[in-house]
Amino acid sequence: MKIKRSERLIDMTAYILSHPHTLTPLTFFVKKYESAKSSISEDLTIIKKTFKDRGFGTLETVAGAAGGVIFTPEIPFDTAKEMVTGLCGRLSEQDRLLPGGYVYLSDLLGEPQLLKQIGQIIASQYVGKEIDAVMTVATKGVPIAQAVSHYLNVPFVIVRRDSKITEGSTVSVNYVSGSSERIEKMELSKRSLKRGSRVLVVDDFMKGGGTVNGMKALIEEFEAELVGITVFAESTFSGRRMIEDYTSLLCVKDVDIRTKNITVVPGNYFDTDNNN
Amino acid sequence: MKIKRSERLIDMTAYILSHPHTLTPLTFFVKKYESAKSSISEDLTIIKKTFKDRGFGTLETVAGAAGGVIFTPEIPFDTAKEMVTGLCGRLSEQDRLLPGGYVYLSDLLGEPQLLKQIGQIIASQYVGKEIDAVMTVATKGVPIAQAVSHYLNVPFVIVRRDSKITEGSTVSVNYVSGSSERIEKMELSKRSLKRGSRVLVVDDFMKGGGTVNGMKALIEEFEAELVGITVFAESTFSGRRMIEDYTSLLCVKDVDIRTKNITVVPGNYFDTDNNN
Repeated sequence: MKIKRSERLIDMTAYILSHPHTLTPLTFFVKKYESAKSSISEDLTIIKKTFKDRGFGTLETVAGAAGGVIFTPEIPFDTAKEMVTGLCGRLSEQDRLLPGGYVYLSDLLGEPQLLKQIGQIIASQYVGKEIDAVMTVATKGVPIAQAVSHYLNVPFVIVRRDSKITEGSTVSVNYVSGSSERIEKMELSKRSLKRGSRVLVVDDFMKGGGTVNGMKALIEEFEAELVGITVFAESTFSGRRMIEDYTSLLCVKDVDIRTKNITVVPGNYFDTDNNN
Repeated sequence: MKIKRSERLIDMTAYILSHPHTLTPLTFFVKKYESAKSSISEDLTIIKKTFKDRGFGTLETVAGAAGGVIFTPEIPFDTAKEMVTGLCGRLSEQDRLLPGGYVYLSDLLGEPQLLKQIGQIIASQYVGKEIDAVMTVATKGVPIAQAVSHYLNVPFVIVRRDSKITEGSTVSVNYVSGSSERIEKMELSKRSLKRGSRVLVVDDFMKGGGTVNGMKALIEEFEAELVGITVFAESTFSGRRMIEDYTSLLCVKDVDIRTKNITVVPGNYFDTDNNN
């Protein structure tokens, strides 16, 4: 039975969206729908145009025998800015203020729709970069790593502060916690990262940068390569920050414990030299 | 400018797939595409049929003034069985065997495509059940909770074994670790779960059931309601299991430390009385 164009477009859209950064040969669709290659090509032209117009990202056609289509999700800069501006409002809610000037984030990092937005925004920054794995540290970095890993279509690995029997052999490093200046330890399962991997580091919150610095040390221990560092939120830190080269989606500029005012602005992700 | 049907179908498919369990009024699409309500209705009929034929789930039309469409993702039982059978093979790989007869899972729980499948399968079991939140315990349960929460479109909350200043006030319970019979403690941020919430518990691995039992106790402390328990994998346990009413996607039946053979079969999710 022949399948109508409308049905093909719906099914192809679903397939392509759920397989980002994956080269799909035209013959895959030809077989799937028992349709002519010319029809599939026409379908893909329509999908390509709509994805572009609607700001989903790029659907690229790769020519040749080993060719096909590959979808790279990327949200427009203005859409990202708009999402993050909305988030600034939510982060400034007074009841988020915790003792010690900390800001409560866990509810936001448990919202699936918000996590998707965060994943899309962070992944957009690394379009065109070769990345083999996303790295984060347990626990609150995990939802962010998972969201980003979905859009980059690469695995994520979780660094832990505690040793677990279910991780097998691990490699550990000591690092200086930036804000408290204590020496801490973090470790990663030995089999979780291949030597030479190109790694993107993400985390929920950066204060002194000590945790991120620990992950940098781990990447070196694995003889892997750091591609970039992006955090969901950073707080302006009075001391010298250990990390220079990173981007943040949000910046907690000021916390007034007396008035309970939290001042949040878009992070340096939106500085023109980080995104063009 | 009028938008062609083909473009509408592509954009509507993307929108609907990324907003599961969300009632979208027809007028939303009418405005978005500046198209007649009758055209939108026709589009939705085509999408509904394709979603059904392709096993994505149900697109339901709710009539009336407050009506619209609502998409419930659900994968067919046979597709779920096929996915899990493939997983049995991967879980039985000899090099997964860790000292103490544990099985290494962390790589699988970091693969975005696999997590999506796990999320779809677990969410499918609870179609038609009212669920307000997904609960899990740090660290390895998090990716599973996040995947399920995406398909149910509800937030997830993370129970922790360690206290963190960034969680604010917490409620804690003591529980007996099923396999080691030690007394342990777990806690959940007080503001993360509303009283009366209907909670689905998920976790990566269940041995004695102590951890899941701890989460049950926490749910009681929050005066919330347990809807169900599903784990990615369980291992057959020689002692008396503390939990009776749960489903598992995979079952580690036997681990032979001498020959390094791991025997994995589909879990009780696939028993006919758990899924019909």
